[in-house]
Amino acid sequence: MSDAREAGFELDPRLAHDAAFIADWQLCRVLLLDDARFPWLVLVPRRAGLAELDDLDETDNARLMHEIRRAMQTLRGAVGCDKLNVGVLGNIVRQLHVHVVARRERDAAWPGPVWGQGPAQPYPPAAREALIARLRSAP
Amino acid sequence: MSDAREAGFELDPRLAHDAAFIADWQLCRVLLLDDARFPWLVLVPRRAGLAELDDLDETDNARLMHEIRRAMQTLRGAVGCDKLNVGVLGNIVRQLHVHVVARRERDAAWPGPVWGQGPAQPYPPAAREALIARLRSAP
Repeated sequence: MSDAREAGFELDPRLAHDAAFIADWQLCRVLLLDDARFPWLVLVPRRAGLAELDDLDETDNARLMHEIRRAMQTLRGAVGCDKLNVGVLGNIVRQLHVHVVARRERDAAWPGPVWGQGPAQPYPPAAREALIARLRSAP
Repeated sequence: MSDAREAGFELDPRLAHDAAFIADWQLCRVLLLDDARFPWLVLVPRRAGLAELDDLDETDNARLMHEIRRAMQTLRGAVGCDKLNVGVLGNIVRQLHVHVVARRERDAAWPGPVWGQGPAQPYPPAAREALIARLRSAP
């Protein structure tokens, strides 16, 4: 454990169930949501007991912004897109987490939001593994 | 004009049409979306030609994060809420803008997203003016 402030952090089981582990960056656990309709990363700060963006201290807040930008660049490099959407909702899973989603102008929800669009369509396993490998190899 | 980097900034006419001016903070123009279903601020960095979060330079990025936190606190103080939602979508209006929305567990879209929920319900004029006054008086 690289930072004492990680003490007590446990990934919400619903996030663990719906998404695959990509990497631990300095602040966030990075996950790939298992929905082939939208290339979709979820960033979860490894801090216990946070629900809102402004529950983070200033240092972690700056780190989170840096990691959101990094996630945007990772998605652009791995899959390409017409627009990136970033969201912090947490109405259902209260553990603070940030959605970073690559949007295409022909995707299943365009130009609407990705949230509230019905059930996820899981990736075929080989496609998921290939995408995870591309995401992990990003700088 | 307080910052030369504001040169060329013009508010997208769709944002100007749908939202009321609250204030100019250091980086962002702050607007109240005219939808009585959800207390909803929109922050628009006064910079020309931006579409994505990572189009901002590092300094403005830190300022934006600070102003998002300030908007969250302003909404909490002015209207109260159970959760705050923050989103950067821009699928329709490409000018970079950030949604900061106060959510209540009995609101019209809970626990779904506020985006894609059909037409806005304009505030009665007196209620809108009262809310604008409360938002402007926040520290």
